[in-house]
Amino acid sequence: MNPDLRRERENASFNPEILTNILDGSAEKTSRRREIESLVINDPDFQHDDLNFMSRSDRYDAAVKKSAQMILKLRDYGISDPEEIYFYKRCVHRGSSEPLDLHLGMFLPTLLNQASPSQLDTFFTPAWNLQIIGTYAQTEMGHGTHIRRLETTATYDPSTQEFVLNSPTVTSIKWWPGGLGKTSNHAIVLAQLYTQGKCHGLHAFIVPIRSMETHQPLPGITVGDIGPKFGFDEVDNGYLKLDNVRIPRDNMLMKYAKVEPDGTYVKPPSDKLTYGTMVFIRSMIVGESAKALAKSSTIAIRYSAVRHQSELRPGEPEPQVLDYQAQQYKLFPLLAAAYAFTFVGQYMSNMYHRITGDINQGDFSELPELHALAAGLKAFTTWVTNTGIEVCRMSCGGHGYSRCSSLPDIYVTFTATCTYEGENTVMMLQTARYLVKSYRQAREGQQLSGIVSYLNEQQRVQPHPVSSRPTVVNINDLSSLVEAYKLRAARLVEMAAKGLQGELQRSKSQEDAWNNCSIELVRASDAHCHYVVVKLFAAKLNEVSDTAVHSVLNTLALLYALQGVALNSGDFLQAGLLTVPQLAQVTQRIKALLAEIRPNAVALVDAFDYRDEMLNSALGRYDGNVYESMFEWAKRSPLNRTEVHDAYYKYMKPLQSKL
Amino acid sequence: MNPDLRRERENASFNPEILTNILDGSAEKTSRRREIESLVINDPDFQHDDLNFMSRSDRYDAAVKKSAQMILKLRDYGISDPEEIYFYKRCVHRGSSEPLDLHLGMFLPTLLNQASPSQLDTFFTPAWNLQIIGTYAQTEMGHGTHIRRLETTATYDPSTQEFVLNSPTVTSIKWWPGGLGKTSNHAIVLAQLYTQGKCHGLHAFIVPIRSMETHQPLPGITVGDIGPKFGFDEVDNGYLKLDNVRIPRDNMLMKYAKVEPDGTYVKPPSDKLTYGTMVFIRSMIVGESAKALAKSSTIAIRYSAVRHQSELRPGEPEPQVLDYQAQQYKLFPLLAAAYAFTFVGQYMSNMYHRITGDINQGDFSELPELHALAAGLKAFTTWVTNTGIEVCRMSCGGHGYSRCSSLPDIYVTFTATCTYEGENTVMMLQTARYLVKSYRQAREGQQLSGIVSYLNEQQRVQPHPVSSRPTVVNINDLSSLVEAYKLRAARLVEMAAKGLQGELQRSKSQEDAWNNCSIELVRASDAHCHYVVVKLFAAKLNEVSDTAVHSVLNTLALLYALQGVALNSGDFLQAGLLTVPQLAQVTQRIKALLAEIRPNAVALVDAFDYRDEMLNSALGRYDGNVYESMFEWAKRSPLNRTEVHDAYYKYMKPLQSKL
Repeated sequence: MNPDLRRERENASFNPEILTNILDGSAEKTSRRREIESLVINDPDFQHDDLNFMSRSDRYDAAVKKSAQMILKLRDYGISDPEEIYFYKRCVHRGSSEPLDLHLGMFLPTLLNQASPSQLDTFFTPAWNLQIIGTYAQTEMGHGTHIRRLETTATYDPSTQEFVLNSPTVTSIKWWPGGLGKTSNHAIVLAQLYTQGKCHGLHAFIVPIRSMETHQPLPGITVGDIGPKFGFDEVDNGYLKLDNVRIPRDNMLMKYAKVEPDGTYVKPPSDKLTYGTMVFIRSMIVGESAKALAKSSTIAIRYSAVRHQSELRPGEPEPQVLDYQAQQYKLFPLLAAAYAFTFVGQYMSNMYHRITGDINQGDFSELPELHALAAGLKAFTTWVTNTGIEVCRMSCGGHGYSRCSSLPDIYVTFTATCTYEGENTVMMLQTARYLVKSYRQAREGQQLSGIVSYLNEQQRVQPHPVSSRPTVVNINDLSSLVEAYKLRAARLVEMAAKGLQGELQRSKSQEDAWNNCSIELVRASDAHCHYVVVKLFAAKLNEVSDTAVHSVLNTLALLYALQGVALNSGDFLQAGLLTVPQLAQVTQRIKALLAEIRPNAVALVDAFDYRDEMLNSALGRYDGNVYESMFEWAKRSPLNRTEVHDAYYKYMKPLQSKL
Repeated sequence: MNPDLRRERENASFNPEILTNILDGSAEKTSRRREIESLVINDPDFQHDDLNFMSRSDRYDAAVKKSAQMILKLRDYGISDPEEIYFYKRCVHRGSSEPLDLHLGMFLPTLLNQASPSQLDTFFTPAWNLQIIGTYAQTEMGHGTHIRRLETTATYDPSTQEFVLNSPTVTSIKWWPGGLGKTSNHAIVLAQLYTQGKCHGLHAFIVPIRSMETHQPLPGITVGDIGPKFGFDEVDNGYLKLDNVRIPRDNMLMKYAKVEPDGTYVKPPSDKLTYGTMVFIRSMIVGESAKALAKSSTIAIRYSAVRHQSELRPGEPEPQVLDYQAQQYKLFPLLAAAYAFTFVGQYMSNMYHRITGDINQGDFSELPELHALAAGLKAFTTWVTNTGIEVCRMSCGGHGYSRCSSLPDIYVTFTATCTYEGENTVMMLQTARYLVKSYRQAREGQQLSGIVSYLNEQQRVQPHPVSSRPTVVNINDLSSLVEAYKLRAARLVEMAAKGLQGELQRSKSQEDAWNNCSIELVRASDAHCHYVVVKLFAAKLNEVSDTAVHSVLNTLALLYALQGVALNSGDFLQAGLLTVPQLAQVTQRIKALLAEIRPNAVALVDAFDYRDEMLNSALGRYDGNVYESMFEWAKRSPLNRTEVHDAYYKYMKPLQSKL
């Protein structure tokens, strides 16, 4: 063990195990997670070469191999709890996506949710046993987030009782679905349904795309891999072009909407029924943000404790990089955000499960709030994390740029979340729509409940002119900071709503007015989400009984909240929530908090409990044996397989003789 | 030509060719650049497969091939002007680094600057003719920016008149130098010089590392590639471990410092002599920032003009993504920054050449200012660009994530500039040191000149209490905005300097006080650089005579300045430079400027004049043929070489039979 890391661990003021249990949910969950991780990590079938040294084709190959093993072993071990499957899968693929993700995560669940009982009989068992390998083909080359304009058509032909599927344009080619390129032999295709001469909008169809015998593409099908991406090397994101592909009527998913044999269309009872999955996945992404930040800050903070550099005092040994205030200021707010987002993720997951219960009882009342919250928080947390991973990487200097740090890989994998499952700006604007609507309801005297209830108070805040408004924030008190975030959000929502009103009075259309207020609307959503995160972090503290852990989490929460104040000081000054002298105090207080966190920083990342095999980072190793590992890793680089590279004989040697 | 792009071009209010000439420096330079680009791009020897489809080893191979061709052709064509060589090289490697970069950019220049006349005779001609292929081995595993603590030793042995070089620890292994891994047979090694029992600090030694006959590593040399990185796939960044490697006394570069045969050390006449190269490279990086942002915004803005999505008005065709205010707000400030940084780069380059003349006359007086400016602006522009490239990428939605957009590649190549040639935070702190020193000099009554002369005015600004300070900014007037940025910088420098004073009074050491003020010091540097950029952008406008071009550049400059105000509104409010009602006006004004730029956006990126071959982006093509190109590109993906991937036969088929 590196002596710096040993000393850091000895000097921590709290027991990281208690914190790990809080992050996992309970001591039992921690122990079960670790059990599953050991099962995978000690399994010889899941060992493989460093992915960084492999071509994309070989990485795909290795991923399929592991996925196949995984399916068999999950059944052998009888692991069936969704959370345990998630642990197992995560560990097998070390947090990467894999070719069967959409089969397991979208194809099977969509069958369960949208197939009629007879369709389940036909399709589910073969799909469960991977005779049918499926994906979910929604996005097209020309349309992503805005799905209503998808162009693929499914036209019912009553004479044969078939649907005829077509990709009428280049832009209508299905593009991006994971596992579509090479792995799947079926796809659930989202297409505009035409029957009896009328378009009924998007519906889902089960389309066989490759032979179940030979895996060759079927007639009318053009299918392939969309080429290399920033990350996701293991995944065969694919394209699919359909030319008069005929499928039986029974291949339209008909639990809700139906097309009868004669072509009569039967509407679904509610259009909210497919909402749930979207909300669930966005909530999950909030948790993924927390995990990506936790991993990145583990690597950066451990490395900063091992790395010594430059001099603080002439003649003295070089200090740990973690002793530099500038380094602390980069990393500790991100560490705090990793904790904040974990707690927000837990809250979202609990809320989702509670509301799903209600929905199953036919009560949709809380769905709009959850939907708006999931959209905004998905965008808010992924943006912060996206930038944060890169801050962590760059805080490791040059070595962060090496793939042996794992940080480039974490980034390229994570950054896709800013785009998929709803592009972030579009998500922020969806949340804004809910906020403006709520604001207007409150203005009309309606009493709001739930997380937007603060908009009820606007009448009370509003009449004060800015200068005379009482300054509310006590920068040393978390609940006062929560209040300040709330008032900031209320003010920005109000400003956006009024701006919208103003635009409308200038006789623009509703839509133009909305577009012309996008900047303010996004800011309002952002402030709302920021408030929610600070509030939930503060709320979580009430559940923590261990005083040492409570104390360190409280410090992190204060840092999180105050750094947000510092970065958005214009908003707080403008709203009169903060005075100019207080702003200087905020900076001083942030510095004091950095110093408070410093001795606990390593223990705080240890508490995330990432095994070395999961981090896969020479810089982030638990034992701190950074430089030797880098050297060992480098020696295995493919360019070192020969002492002299062929390029020398082919180009340099001949060149020398010509000059 | 895509009809949207044609219409955009027809509607521009100015002639992009005039702007291109301003960016290049003159019409003649534009035409010469284009001539050279055509020479390269039409040359069959420089054609190759898409790099995205190749392994790293093949990319290295292709790069060596191109570099070898390039050396021959530059000589054949007689191209010898450094700027023209730069154009040629840039075009051959399409903006990527290559294995001979350090040979051409560091090894040869260091010989020229630091070798004695007799050493030049020995080494320069073989190096010029690539018998000697060299690199510059400074960075070690344990030390990057802080070079004084490098550990490699060169101990003089008078008995044989040799230096004995050693890597005494793992951390002392040379790590990162480009071309070191596989390409070079020599390295200029920076090592601590020991002679007559005393250490004389870092000196440069020419060390043969591979046989000039067989290219095999020489005895005592362990050399290899450091493994895959985020980017720079073409470059064999390497490691070098030295075990009692003996080189003749004559292999120490002895133009300035010397070791005599008996081991007597002779000091160099000045320690500023090696300063120049560092300043030059940092100034160049400012220009690279401009180019990376120009490329990225070209891709994102053209694609946003071609892409139609969602609906502004129900029932109407989908609008161009560029019509969304949120999209404009992402892209146009970056477009403005690309212009700003181009002009700053031109200024730095001119200043460098002017001061180099002075230095050659023995006048070092302006060097500290240039050094401080280059450090800060390198950090300022690379950070903005680093974030900006990713904003451009994500503004292209999912397709930005595909390597066919080229944006991932631009990012991974560019992001290294935040770290190399001086880690950005360290650079900001270097600039801060100069600013604090200047501030103190001004307080002591010294009259400052040059770019920091605004610190002279501090006494005048200071006595006013914040609330009564007159509001200076007219948000519609660029020179008033320059003034506001100046006062903001003055205030933040003053706050940092006073904070430092306060820390010192709390009886901390000078060094601890400095560390405890890092946050404020970095902010002060940042504000200083921001002021310089706004000021230089405004100054450039005076040189532009064409009224249409002047008008559009003025709009960009205002947007650049006002967006900076909006993002740092806390500073401007706090300093009393802006009132709360003005802040609302800033947002309105920004929106008006976005709308003004909108019709010229495509012409403004056309003016950067990137040929399709240089952009290499399906999304950024001049003709806008985006979707067809993506499809054609994808079909060539290595995973599509067979219809059925081997993984199917190896894993999926057997799995199906087991389930």
